[in-house]
Amino acid sequence: MSVNLPVMGVLEEVPGIRVGTADADILDTGRDDVAVFAFEPGATVGGVYTRNRYRAAPVEIASACPGPARGFIVNSGNANAATGERGVNNAVQTCSYLASLLECEVSEVLPFSTGVIGEFLPMENILAAIDRAHQALSPNHWAQAAAAIMTTDTAPKGLSNRFTLGGREAIGTGIVKGSGMIRPDMATLLAFVGTNASVTPEIARRLTFDLAELSFNRLTVDGDTSTNDSFVVVASGVGDHEVIHDELSIEYSELFLGLTPIVRELAMRTVRDAEGATRFITIHVHGGLDASECMRVAYTVAHSPLVKTALFAGDPNWGRFCMAIGRAGITDLDPYGVSLNLNDVRVAIGGMVSDSYHEEDGAEVMAKDEYDITIDLGRGSSQETIWTSDLSYEYVRINAEYRS
Amino acid sequence: MSVNLPVMGVLEEVPGIRVGTADADILDTGRDDVAVFAFEPGATVGGVYTRNRYRAAPVEIASACPGPARGFIVNSGNANAATGERGVNNAVQTCSYLASLLECEVSEVLPFSTGVIGEFLPMENILAAIDRAHQALSPNHWAQAAAAIMTTDTAPKGLSNRFTLGGREAIGTGIVKGSGMIRPDMATLLAFVGTNASVTPEIARRLTFDLAELSFNRLTVDGDTSTNDSFVVVASGVGDHEVIHDELSIEYSELFLGLTPIVRELAMRTVRDAEGATRFITIHVHGGLDASECMRVAYTVAHSPLVKTALFAGDPNWGRFCMAIGRAGITDLDPYGVSLNLNDVRVAIGGMVSDSYHEEDGAEVMAKDEYDITIDLGRGSSQETIWTSDLSYEYVRINAEYRS
Repeated sequence: MSVNLPVMGVLEEVPGIRVGTADADILDTGRDDVAVFAFEPGATVGGVYTRNRYRAAPVEIASACPGPARGFIVNSGNANAATGERGVNNAVQTCSYLASLLECEVSEVLPFSTGVIGEFLPMENILAAIDRAHQALSPNHWAQAAAAIMTTDTAPKGLSNRFTLGGREAIGTGIVKGSGMIRPDMATLLAFVGTNASVTPEIARRLTFDLAELSFNRLTVDGDTSTNDSFVVVASGVGDHEVIHDELSIEYSELFLGLTPIVRELAMRTVRDAEGATRFITIHVHGGLDASECMRVAYTVAHSPLVKTALFAGDPNWGRFCMAIGRAGITDLDPYGVSLNLNDVRVAIGGMVSDSYHEEDGAEVMAKDEYDITIDLGRGSSQETIWTSDLSYEYVRINAEYRS
Repeated sequence: MSVNLPVMGVLEEVPGIRVGTADADILDTGRDDVAVFAFEPGATVGGVYTRNRYRAAPVEIASACPGPARGFIVNSGNANAATGERGVNNAVQTCSYLASLLECEVSEVLPFSTGVIGEFLPMENILAAIDRAHQALSPNHWAQAAAAIMTTDTAPKGLSNRFTLGGREAIGTGIVKGSGMIRPDMATLLAFVGTNASVTPEIARRLTFDLAELSFNRLTVDGDTSTNDSFVVVASGVGDHEVIHDELSIEYSELFLGLTPIVRELAMRTVRDAEGATRFITIHVHGGLDASECMRVAYTVAHSPLVKTALFAGDPNWGRFCMAIGRAGITDLDPYGVSLNLNDVRVAIGGMVSDSYHEEDGAEVMAKDEYDITIDLGRGSSQETIWTSDLSYEYVRINAEYRS
């Protein structure tokens, strides 16, 4: 089940980045569950990581990486989270093993895991799979990696974009996994973006943060924040571009604008492929005093189980939107100043139903599988937009049955 | 569907309080949907109301009541919320009509509504029903009222308790409705408790607040806070008891302790009858620095869709509890200090699985329809307890189909 999720097109090679996958049989899925990335010397990496206090062992290690990187080791099926010191040692051991194959320092390899929390990695299987994935390394295996990192995703998600950087062509390719336990606060699932631009470690960090703000930090499925979510950008530096070291430079803007279509599309596809999703909803909140209260209203509406079940049902029970707006914690909100639109249908204004509103118009919008909810708080000039999905039987089934 | 919900026993008469019901046909349920309460002169009332900024019209009026009261007019099926000035006028009109029948001031009648948000009350039907309910007034119609205020509840909920007050017997009887859109922050559904004690208006307010803290403010179903939730206590003063005017008096304690079993049991039954509930879960959070962080952890766990679906499945996927604890917003929480029990089974300690834990033990607990989750944060001496339910297919069905 997914909402207008595009079939993944061709993922283009990124000079300086090779990818390989293998099956470690972590869960009995019959598909590859380990992916290895290898970068040429000189690559830099920036990461944005979960804010959950239970950070998984791999997140602790990856987030400590100072910038230069030679490889990633990624597995699905097991999150290596809530696994204590043994979990950290296991993650280090996978990095160490890949480092020996890549002939680099262990600190230049970053680990990523996603899957069940609280279980130990099957080390023997994983080390053997790293071997095979390393042997399979190739610049054109991005699509295999997009599939290997999936958990409850219904399809692999990835895309590429070519753009101009300092007068020369550059390339970006990104992949993402994640369809539940998704919301912002640095909750960025597992997303990997590679480019052949050349940036300093500081710029890599800044770029990743800026990209996340416009993409993965603007979506929510169920409000749950994973212990493992990570979004990393690798700049291989293999492309004759000047090294970018200034975030105010034109080249930084070109790079940012070149990668933005990738990360925004990856973020939206993540919501389209949300667990059990039958609707893709864009929530705009206008008229707030500041961005923070716009986001708070948007997320309270997006997380409300009663709103989400109404979205699922296609029922224009718009009072539930008001209920959620009213409990968003804006203590001085005046309900009489709020208005509500479904696409261009004005539903409520002045704290009550609009004179011009007819329920069949609301029902017509909510019968669609994609539409916009626009809330105007009527008290300022800030605005924010997020993407979310509905709450269906299928969400319950998937999350009740996961592991079994 | 409900979890070990006791059949409602006999609801005892409370001297000085009469109750009547009638069918205004607000929704086509075939049962009474209007209840009228009438009190002898001298009765006082205290209320605790929703904190939602979209407060329904009746809540605006009821919460402004200074204390002395002669009657309530309650309807189910329509919340009279997000209905603007017309909604307020409608609510006032119902009060005014009942006041004329009771021969009292309009300000002595409090209105309460529950049901669909955003629609106007069918005034003609309701006024006619008030007439019939008034004619039906009797001290022994509490059970009918418990049924008339139901929306998606599967059964009426109420109970009585006799206790000693200042050396004399006193009586309390309470009813509650509500099975979704339930969480605290003054979100207390519709709950009415009557007693024949005699208290000042100030004590009535204080008593209601104190009782809510131990009952309705300790439960959550879906995290949604209704626009209408109200919990009121009426003291009829018909019982030869001294007037209580001091919250530090022995009589206040006796009254408080006499009514506590009613409100706690009503609160727990509300969770047992939660929409689609298949489990009744008690969450204890110990070892917090203060009550506020204990509550925050408890509610984050209770509201997590991934926790709630694991509860539904009976799947001891305890990593999801850790995930929720980790995202509860305690920024300096040390996961290595946290431990987790399912009943007396120690599952996790030191941020990882306990050496002594066997998954079949966790599975055995989570196969039960009632059990305790105990989280020790390991950083202080505060503790809190709340009650919650799971997230089932049935919850989605009920909330997707409500209104249709």
